[in-house]
Amino acid sequence: MHSSDNLPFALARTHRKYMIQAIQLAEQAYDEGEVPVGALIVRNDRIVGKGYNQAEQLNDATAHAEMLAISAACATLSSKYLTDCSLYVTLEPCPMCAAALMWSKIDQVIFGAVDADYGACGSVFNMASNASLNHEFKVIQGIMEKECEAMLKAFFREQRDKEGKK
Amino acid sequence: MHSSDNLPFALARTHRKYMIQAIQLAEQAYDEGEVPVGALIVRNDRIVGKGYNQAEQLNDATAHAEMLAISAACATLSSKYLTDCSLYVTLEPCPMCAAALMWSKIDQVIFGAVDADYGACGSVFNMASNASLNHEFKVIQGIMEKECEAMLKAFFREQRDKEGKK
Repeated sequence: MHSSDNLPFALARTHRKYMIQAIQLAEQAYDEGEVPVGALIVRNDRIVGKGYNQAEQLNDATAHAEMLAISAACATLSSKYLTDCSLYVTLEPCPMCAAALMWSKIDQVIFGAVDADYGACGSVFNMASNASLNHEFKVIQGIMEKECEAMLKAFFREQRDKEGKK
Repeated sequence: MHSSDNLPFALARTHRKYMIQAIQLAEQAYDEGEVPVGALIVRNDRIVGKGYNQAEQLNDATAHAEMLAISAACATLSSKYLTDCSLYVTLEPCPMCAAALMWSKIDQVIFGAVDADYGACGSVFNMASNASLNHEFKVIQGIMEKECEAMLKAFFREQRDKEGKK
């Protein structure tokens, strides 16, 4: 796992450009009452898949932003492998999503906020580089971390306030 | 993780009844050139979701039997939680599927063959009872193990033979 602190400027700028779009997807989730996580997949500077968390609306525990983005990218590329692709996501992937990324043979994952509870790209589990698994992917963390974190905190605070009023 | 060896007869019979159907789903995958894994989800002795591995046909690395069965069951029950549900699957779930089962709050998982490479219900990882995760589910292994294993072995042998002929 690499911190975003020491990235060359041009690379940091590219990562930021896509992370802003992932944040906009997360905001869409927020506005629809979903835990605000957004994800997109890029290949050769072209977006090939997008997703935002839709677990509530789709009534489906597997409908995380990353899973939807992976399926969309696979459809776009007509391939079950996402070779040379990068996933941008506002929150560190959980074990389900990280293992899906491993299966898809993605090249790298760039995430914003750390998930200290379920993060599976180094925080709680490490599905990104695990000798037991057949594919490793690079991880860059901390791109627009504060913005990604603030949105999640605001969402959960709002949820608690709603619960408190019931 | 519990072995199926000491189950009461009536329970073993129920598990076998559903595992036979999971095997039939796996055979459908086999016939379509997919790694033969089949899964179904049962609630109150009623099948609420089915799936078989379709990663090749759907060009989607996330299209494992269990993921498709979970999404189908969530649709049937109009719920993102699979409370009081049991998943029957011919092969031990991988980390992606086991974490999806954790998110879905499934009650128990009954599997046939052990996956010594990727199994995440006790073999390589343990997503079924992990203090870091917010839900635990029961695991019963070994129902019709030999039949499930034989099908996978035959499939991979056939694949190797095809590769050898190229």
